[in-house]
Amino acid sequence: MMRNFSNLPSADGVWTNLRSVEGRDVAIVVENGVIRWTGVVTAIPAEYAAAKKHDGGGALVTPGLIDCHTHLVYGGKRANEFAMRLAGATYEEVSRAGGGIVSSVKATRAASEEELFASGAARLEELLAEGVCAIEIKSGYGLALEHERKQLRVARKLGEAYGVTVRATFLGAHALPPEYAGRSGDYIDLVCNEMMPALAAEGLIDAVDAFCENIAFSVAETERVFQAAQALGLRVKLHAEQLTDQGGAILAARYDALSCDHIEYLSQAGVDAMAKAGCVAVLLPAAFYTLREKQHPPVAALRAAGVPIAVSTDHNPGTSPCLSLLLTMNMACTLFRLTVDEVLAGVTTNAARALDLQDTHGTIAARRPANFLLWNVGEAAELAYWFGQRPVRTIVRQGRIANWR
Amino acid sequence: MMRNFSNLPSADGVWTNLRSVEGRDVAIVVENGVIRWTGVVTAIPAEYAAAKKHDGGGALVTPGLIDCHTHLVYGGKRANEFAMRLAGATYEEVSRAGGGIVSSVKATRAASEEELFASGAARLEELLAEGVCAIEIKSGYGLALEHERKQLRVARKLGEAYGVTVRATFLGAHALPPEYAGRSGDYIDLVCNEMMPALAAEGLIDAVDAFCENIAFSVAETERVFQAAQALGLRVKLHAEQLTDQGGAILAARYDALSCDHIEYLSQAGVDAMAKAGCVAVLLPAAFYTLREKQHPPVAALRAAGVPIAVSTDHNPGTSPCLSLLLTMNMACTLFRLTVDEVLAGVTTNAARALDLQDTHGTIAARRPANFLLWNVGEAAELAYWFGQRPVRTIVRQGRIANWR
Ligand SMILES: [Zn+2]
Ligand SMILES: [Zn+2]
Repeated sequence: MMRNFSNLPSADGVWTNLRSVEGRDVAIVVENGVIRWTGVVTAIPAEYAAAKKHDGGGALVTPGLIDCHTHLVYGGKRANEFAMRLAGATYEEVSRAGGGIVSSVKATRAASEEELFASGAARLEELLAEGVCAIEIKSGYGLALEHERKQLRVARKLGEAYGVTVRATFLGAHALPPEYAGRSGDYIDLVCNEMMPALAAEGLIDAVDAFCENIAFSVAETERVFQAAQALGLRVKLHAEQLTDQGGAILAARYDALSCDHIEYLSQAGVDAMAKAGCVAVLLPAAFYTLREKQHPPVAALRAAGVPIAVSTDHNPGTSPCLSLLLTMNMACTLFRLTVDEVLAGVTTNAARALDLQDTHGTIAARRPANFLLWNVGEAAELAYWFGQRPVRTIVRQGRIANWR
Repeated sequence: MMRNFSNLPSADGVWTNLRSVEGRDVAIVVENGVIRWTGVVTAIPAEYAAAKKHDGGGALVTPGLIDCHTHLVYGGKRANEFAMRLAGATYEEVSRAGGGIVSSVKATRAASEEELFASGAARLEELLAEGVCAIEIKSGYGLALEHERKQLRVARKLGEAYGVTVRATFLGAHALPPEYAGRSGDYIDLVCNEMMPALAAEGLIDAVDAFCENIAFSVAETERVFQAAQALGLRVKLHAEQLTDQGGAILAARYDALSCDHIEYLSQAGVDAMAKAGCVAVLLPAAFYTLREKQHPPVAALRAAGVPIAVSTDHNPGTSPCLSLLLTMNMACTLFRLTVDEVLAGVTTNAARALDLQDTHGTIAARRPANFLLWNVGEAAELAYWFGQRPVRTIVRQGRIANWR
């Protein structure tokens, strides 16, 4: 199924007959895979007159999409658990049948790097097919050095194989592995003193994440993870206030976190702390939907405080088996009432910030790698309005014309 | 974009190495586009030994999907209205800006048959790409003889062009056209005495539908529509109890309706009437989701009474701009708690019944046109578990290998 990325045609040349989101007739000049110039079509510098032409056919153009929060690499799947729950099985029955996060940990540990690559690649292909050009992939189903390493190595390899920007996030503090039951302090020791330094030394960590929740790790444990990251010069982010308000966002803001994610139960103090720190709020409506949550993230307060808002799939086998970022845009509008402008920024500029990629991704601008999309829609609002569709016409990813079909 | 259906490769031959939903190793023999034989692989009759072989590669096989309730053919779109609402516009402001169903009626009336075909085709292609092999398309945005005719003719033409079974449903009683404001009785006269007989005579009507609701037509008006249909020998179905309990389902059951659709507010008496009449309950979770409804259809009561349950996109530009039947399967499970078996029946056997296609569609069986799908999944539950994906591997539609890519 996989194509050889380096064999895809180059996007070098002058792209004209494109319509910007603001409705302007624009052009983009690509050289050696990098955007050299962009602006209104009438202003194309004369020096590009002889360059190869790409006719955009009047299509709407946007930056490549960015999925800034995923757990894409894991062993197994939880379709059986999904079916059991619908058939009326209790939590205990599912658990006895080997369900829950433990089943993903077991399957991830049992899988070879090749197996993890193959299953992750199939899922990645679905996201690439709709126009994702950069993606975050977290570890956190290995929960032991060798298995967390395996996940992060696969994340790196997927990026190389598909020519897609991958940010690898170390989420050793995702859940307590069964062998540490009742000894979460010891496990946090392992995460901070062994796993994180070793994986950082191998160049496998772009950022560090943790799950701060009453069913996961405490604020004090999370702070230890953040301190260890800080000592290694790694930026942090946090799964915060998804089910309860733990004050995780306030802690994260103190550690200059790139983002706090989920945040359905975020307090006003948390909003204020995030605003002050310039921390991105990553909303994950597909998990909200799957869990049939009732508590909405405080969108109005985030907006009022000027917190940048991003939107992501949170793809994972338990609470968000979602393989469409476009669908999560519709969900963010429909369920959380984001505006169209907010949701577009949420999968481009603000998603880039959440991944510390704001200098290279999220906008169409000179000196950035060429990542942009031509769409079969009349206006940008349609990207969030329709759902379940695949309206992308042309994908330019890392300087290549990477159309799936 | 459109391929010539008749140029697609024939599916004739013996399909082996297929796994049924029940996990059996099965084979399917296709001759002249029709299923001649199907059963466990060890029982293939000797007479087919010399036939062409198709290796299914061990894939899961299911019947072709059936989307049994759509408004796929219309002019314009309502993305701007979607954006306005999210930006805080009131209902009145949207209405003053030309929004609401009236905008779709205007745009449909203004569109030529060719324009309606082109926009409908683009949407149909999205559904076909995931494995839809039969689809219902309603009129109801013309609301005048020539414009209802235009919609129904386009529905027929889409079926021919794409080699997909289309059931055309006359929904003249969808909404009151502006020129009949305050004169709904006169409009129902027009629907019953002029539009329906003319369109039936032209062979454009497979079934008759109405929207019975406090914002649409009363039970008495709906009954007049049903009587007119009955006089013409046409089966009926109903948009019933979506926003309130009007007793529409009880009426529909009296007229031996094929289906009652939406039914969030269906009473126990309505459930009982449907059960007795063998009327299919068509659940439309994407509309429920888009409207952020709170009242769930009475799934437990339908189940207890043995009412067959179908699931559909309800694709329409106002309350369900949804272009994925697979996604609505996930929504029916997640939001309405259908089981995996129920949701599979809901887009195959029961969807066929809702369209009076039970003798030819919805199951893989001898003497039926060859409509079946090979999937890139390990088990049937995955079709509902993942969402936003396109896992179909091979599409056999009306006897041809109709893969989109
Ligand atoms: Zn997550
Ligand atoms: Zn409808």
